[in-house]
Amino acid sequence: MSRPSPSYSLTLRIEYPNTVGMLGRVTSLIGERGGDIGAIDIVQTTKGAMTRDITFSASDIAHGEQIIQAVRQIGDIDIVQVSDRTFLMHLGGKLEVHPKHPIKTRDDISMLYTPGVARIVEKIAENPDDAWNLSIKKNFVAVVTDGSEVLGLGAAGPQAALPVMEAKAILLHEFAGVDGFPLPLNVSNDDEFVAAVKAIAPSFGAIHLEDIRAPRCFRLEKRLADALDIPVFHNDQHGTAIVALAGLMNALKLVSKHAANLKVVINGAEAAGIATALLLRSYGVKDIIVCDEDGILARQQNDETLYDVAQTTNPRDVSGTIEDALKGADALLGFGRHRVLEPDAIRAMNAEPIVFAMANPYPEVEPAGIENIARVIATGKSDFPNQINNMLAFPGVFRGLLDARARGVNDTMKLAAASAIASVVGADELNEDYIIPSVFNRRVAPAVAKAVAKAAFDTGMARRVGRV
Amino acid sequence: MSRPSPSYSLTLRIEYPNTVGMLGRVTSLIGERGGDIGAIDIVQTTKGAMTRDITFSASDIAHGEQIIQAVRQIGDIDIVQVSDRTFLMHLGGKLEVHPKHPIKTRDDISMLYTPGVARIVEKIAENPDDAWNLSIKKNFVAVVTDGSEVLGLGAAGPQAALPVMEAKAILLHEFAGVDGFPLPLNVSNDDEFVAAVKAIAPSFGAIHLEDIRAPRCFRLEKRLADALDIPVFHNDQHGTAIVALAGLMNALKLVSKHAANLKVVINGAEAAGIATALLLRSYGVKDIIVCDEDGILARQQNDETLYDVAQTTNPRDVSGTIEDALKGADALLGFGRHRVLEPDAIRAMNAEPIVFAMANPYPEVEPAGIENIARVIATGKSDFPNQINNMLAFPGVFRGLLDARARGVNDTMKLAAASAIASVVGADELNEDYIIPSVFNRRVAPAVAKAVAKAAFDTGMARRVGRV
Repeated sequence: MSRPSPSYSLTLRIEYPNTVGMLGRVTSLIGERGGDIGAIDIVQTTKGAMTRDITFSASDIAHGEQIIQAVRQIGDIDIVQVSDRTFLMHLGGKLEVHPKHPIKTRDDISMLYTPGVARIVEKIAENPDDAWNLSIKKNFVAVVTDGSEVLGLGAAGPQAALPVMEAKAILLHEFAGVDGFPLPLNVSNDDEFVAAVKAIAPSFGAIHLEDIRAPRCFRLEKRLADALDIPVFHNDQHGTAIVALAGLMNALKLVSKHAANLKVVINGAEAAGIATALLLRSYGVKDIIVCDEDGILARQQNDETLYDVAQTTNPRDVSGTIEDALKGADALLGFGRHRVLEPDAIRAMNAEPIVFAMANPYPEVEPAGIENIARVIATGKSDFPNQINNMLAFPGVFRGLLDARARGVNDTMKLAAASAIASVVGADELNEDYIIPSVFNRRVAPAVAKAVAKAAFDTGMARRVGRV
Repeated sequence: MSRPSPSYSLTLRIEYPNTVGMLGRVTSLIGERGGDIGAIDIVQTTKGAMTRDITFSASDIAHGEQIIQAVRQIGDIDIVQVSDRTFLMHLGGKLEVHPKHPIKTRDDISMLYTPGVARIVEKIAENPDDAWNLSIKKNFVAVVTDGSEVLGLGAAGPQAALPVMEAKAILLHEFAGVDGFPLPLNVSNDDEFVAAVKAIAPSFGAIHLEDIRAPRCFRLEKRLADALDIPVFHNDQHGTAIVALAGLMNALKLVSKHAANLKVVINGAEAAGIATALLLRSYGVKDIIVCDEDGILARQQNDETLYDVAQTTNPRDVSGTIEDALKGADALLGFGRHRVLEPDAIRAMNAEPIVFAMANPYPEVEPAGIENIARVIATGKSDFPNQINNMLAFPGVFRGLLDARARGVNDTMKLAAASAIASVVGADELNEDYIIPSVFNRRVAPAVAKAVAKAAFDTGMARRVGRV
């Protein structure tokens, strides 16, 4: 059984005769059954009776129910209520819209609404770029999905994807002061998706694409980038690629290797894998082999989506399995869905292997099994050192894009973002277990924002006049 | 020149030698030139010098500039800065998105985001109606326009319409606690508009249409109502119709007349006029004549948009001008664009005429000219008694629709909303100058919400189980 997690956190309201030892019996039982007790609060005490809330984490729903059943068996205990904390936190949605100025008086109406707003309308109608000063466009990002690849759950659909997009909006706000608005789109094909995003663009300074299945995500991003004059950034691709590259940059410092003569194997030819391969190319890595579930991606191929990446990777024209690819490689960046490798495959790599096994929920290779083989190990999970999480990239990226009022996104910006993340780990701090900052490191997003905005100015993509 | 308005409110920062009488010279001058002084604040005093902010309202931009020029002519006065308060209040947009729960710790991430949110996704994927409990859908309304008829300014386009939609969102929040989100849509035809609104529907519990030109607004509203399982409410039509009917209900009490044998003339065959004609029919008014700029709307006609309303109005088959229509009529409800009537036309009405002259910016007939002719006079403006403003309807309507989780809007709800607004004016308060509550009356929106929700339950349109 996996460890108790706060995402299965239950609050049990119990009432019992206020006699010595009763609370101890309950808490001991929860502990014995594998529950992890958090808060214990008194709700009410009356003559002889006590009501308490006991909050504990279980491993999953069934485990939580087993614990509750066990508590029920204790005599004299009345379970008044069981609340699931995760559900409570999602109740009624996780976002609110707040006016910056209230409308309390006639004067407020005259300035914020009619007739005053007419002057604002006329100004923007004359010069649409004034919307960046005089409307929410300045700080709003649409968090858009079609619901085709929600978390690891597959095509849950747009309605079910809404709570996830809300969570992304919270992260944008929390780490970068960006106003994100969740817009899971109810569409049935590429054309409808593109048309809908074009339609909603006036309210937003950038478009955050999320949880869209490959290869559709490649087509949609390209079409939208061509159609819109605001940046379109697919987080599953580029957010993840930026953070993986940031980790790789720091890992390379540890092994004193350089991009130009590095051999990198990428596992997974979907959103994150393809985007990372292309970004590594821009970073100067020349020898990249991409593998999918059928093995090494062949240079000659008919798959239109994979054509671009196939043309610029696998320069030695290697064929075979991922194990074949790994022979003599310096780094493995895994974005797969399954455990696919034994420790021996890592043993066959070049000296001081760098292994980012980011498959979810189980890393491509068991980290514990390669501790003495690999020099640097990272995963996508929070229970190992070096978590590669796109939370480190996207809030700061959008902050920087908005600050520059960028017209689009380019690789210069993505490389700058990766460097910025890497640089948050100081030379004196850098070690095998600390190549990437924590997702809670508050210095990351501002550093990324500054780097992205600067890159926007440097590459002529900034709409804003003057530096930020 | 029209009166000074806070929508042309300027703040003048002046610096001058701190000698007796200097401030008086400035304020007198502003007053002499027709400016209306509000706040006077000290910014800074140094040895011998004084810096102050003087805020005053002008009649329009040119008038404000004349006043500033005059102040400049005073010796020893340095104008440091001029700020336009209306522009300042729109700077950076008027809305923010706030997370209800911050993400500060791993536990927060586990519950609000991954892995906890996966359980919420699965629950909604199984039963989409759970989105009403577990996402922002519960309290969010999209404020949607195509920018085709923005305020009285015409087709300003979606980008320029954004600040107006933001203002509507503020009103929804301020008066009814509804989270409105502005979505002016960049679309070029009806099909694109309908497709875009269908696409964004998952995030919202209702759709607020605004500032869409007639007859397009009729087609779009109908198509969207058919396509969506959430309410679609075009405020320019129904918000205005509800408030006009509320005012008429109270005016009828004053003259002791009844809907069934009332003769009503409506001026304006666009959004508000047509919607009001149809709502009056539902209320039981049998004799309605609609006029547009060409005079009385003929029963026989080819205009598809006007066909429905033409079939159910003008029962006496009158033809001619609006003056012809008004002969013997009990009430005029004007939603036009121009001054079109002389007092004599009102004199030709039935005894105790009710005149709602809501044309903007100039009422259909000068109110001062009919004070001794009409029994009840209302306008759309705030500088006369009895302002008919759809602000009185839409916030409460959306609150009620959301509270009931309504599947759509019907006339029962609209009639209930009108009754609720009318009932806020007590029998002991009702008089010719007080037939409709103030837009700031805080009892209106809750009364409307309750009435609309009840009507939703009564007509089987409520998705919510149990009463609110």
